[in-house]
Amino acid sequence: MAKPLILVTNDDGMFAPGIKALVEVCKELGEVFVVAPNSPQSGQGHAITLTQPLRLHKVDVFEGVEAYECSGTPVDCVKLAKNVLLKDRKVDLCVSGINHGSNASINIIYSGTMSAAMEASLEGIDSIGFSLLDYSFDADFKPTQHYAKILIRSVLENTLEKCQLLSVNIPKLPLEEIKGFKVCKQGNGVWVEDFQEALDPRGEKYYWLTGKFIPDANETDTDLTALADGYISVVPSWHDLTKHDALEPLKYLEDAR
Amino acid sequence: MAKPLILVTNDDGMFAPGIKALVEVCKELGEVFVVAPNSPQSGQGHAITLTQPLRLHKVDVFEGVEAYECSGTPVDCVKLAKNVLLKDRKVDLCVSGINHGSNASINIIYSGTMSAAMEASLEGIDSIGFSLLDYSFDADFKPTQHYAKILIRSVLENTLEKCQLLSVNIPKLPLEEIKGFKVCKQGNGVWVEDFQEALDPRGEKYYWLTGKFIPDANETDTDLTALADGYISVVPSWHDLTKHDALEPLKYLEDAR
Repeated sequence: MAKPLILVTNDDGMFAPGIKALVEVCKELGEVFVVAPNSPQSGQGHAITLTQPLRLHKVDVFEGVEAYECSGTPVDCVKLAKNVLLKDRKVDLCVSGINHGSNASINIIYSGTMSAAMEASLEGIDSIGFSLLDYSFDADFKPTQHYAKILIRSVLENTLEKCQLLSVNIPKLPLEEIKGFKVCKQGNGVWVEDFQEALDPRGEKYYWLTGKFIPDANETDTDLTALADGYISVVPSWHDLTKHDALEPLKYLEDAR
Repeated sequence: MAKPLILVTNDDGMFAPGIKALVEVCKELGEVFVVAPNSPQSGQGHAITLTQPLRLHKVDVFEGVEAYECSGTPVDCVKLAKNVLLKDRKVDLCVSGINHGSNASINIIYSGTMSAAMEASLEGIDSIGFSLLDYSFDADFKPTQHYAKILIRSVLENTLEKCQLLSVNIPKLPLEEIKGFKVCKQGNGVWVEDFQEALDPRGEKYYWLTGKFIPDANETDTDLTALADGYISVVPSWHDLTKHDALEPLKYLEDAR
C-alpha cells in the first residue's frame, strides 16, 4: 500500500524547532511534503496575499523530505501546496505546527498555525494544528511528539468523523504527567490588552501590542480547563462563524424599516 | 442624552469610497470616531502585528470627524482604538466597511472587514461589518447607506441579542429591488483556486492567487441564497469555531494510545 501523503506547514517559519519535531513524527507515518513560510508569521490569522505575487523556493532542510519555502502567509502556503505543488496528488492529511504557545480558546482566531490547518480543511483535506504551551526556543517537544504520533496515526487510520479539522494544544508537562487526550469545545476568555508606548530613535511615537489572557473562570469542559487539568485538548473545529442560537432572537431585524 | 459613540473602521484603507459612505451614515446617528488602515488590507483576516511597532497619525479626511490612520491591520486598528485612543470612553458600536465585494459564506474567514468587527465584539462592543457585492470603485453606495442607517439605528436602540456581531452583505441592486433584511446562517462554498504563474522582469517565477467561488447548491436559508434572492443577508456571528456535533463522534480519540 502507498504511504499516506502528509503535508506539513506552520506559522513560525521553516527554521523553527516545532516544524522539525513535527516532520520527524510524520516521516515515521507517511511521505512528508513541507511548504512553510520563509519568515515567522505568528498572529497572521487567516491572512492571504492578494496584492503581491508569491515566491516558492525548494530547500534542503529536512533529510529525505521535499520542502519549499514560501514568501507568503501560512494560508498561502497551503493554497500553493494544494493547487500548484501537489495539484496532481491526493493529500491525505495536513498537519500544522508544532506552534510555540497557546492556540486554545479565542487564540485560534489569531493563529497562523490554525488558519493554515483550517485552509486545508476548506480544501477538503483532514487537518490537525498542534500547539505546545511553551514559548521557549528550547521547549521540549518529546511529549508532544509522542502524542502527535498517536493522534496522527489514529486520524490516518480512521479519518475524521463529522469534521475535517482538529485544534490540538499540549500542556507544558513531562510525558508521564500528561493524562491523555480530551475532546472538548473551545473555551472563552478575553485578552486584556495594553500597548507599550515609546519614542523611536527619531522621536516619533510608536505602539507595540502586549496583553494578558484571562480565561473565563465559569466554564467547564473546554480546551482551557482540559489543559489546566493536564490533558491534551482536542477541539473539533470548522469555518462556520454563525451564532446559531441568535438567529431566532434577531429575526426582529427583518422588520427594521 | 449624549450621542452614541460609533467607531468606524475598514480594511480597504482610509481613502476607500466605502468608508466615506459609512461615515456619512454614522454622522447622522452619533458621534463618529475613525481608525482605519493607511493602506489596503483586503484578505488580511484576523492578522495582528506582533513583530513590529504600530503608528497612529491623526488625519483630516472626514469633515467634523476625529480620524486616525494606522500602519497595521484592521484588527490592530480596533485594538488601538479601544485600548489607546478611546480607552477612557465607552464605545457604543463598531461598524466596519463598507467593504467592496462579498464577505458572505466562507469569505468571512479571509475578510479584514469582518475580522475588525469581530475584534470589537471580542472586546465587548456590539459590532457590524458591511460589504457591498460590487468591486467597482464607482459602486453605488446609496442603497447600502439607506439600509445601513436603518440597521445601525435599530442596533443602537435595541442592542444586539444573544450575539455582539453581525455580518451584513448587500446585493448589487437598485434600492427599489432590494427586498429588505434576511437573518440567516453562513452558507457553504468552496474557492476553486488557481495561481497565475509567470516570470518577473528578472526571469524569476512568481505565483499570484486567483480563483472562483462556487456556492454549495444544496443549501437553503443561507447568506448566499438570501443575496441571490435580492435580500440583504444578516448573519449573527461570533468567534467559536468548535464543531459541536463532532464532539461526541470524536470521543474515540480519547482512547488513542
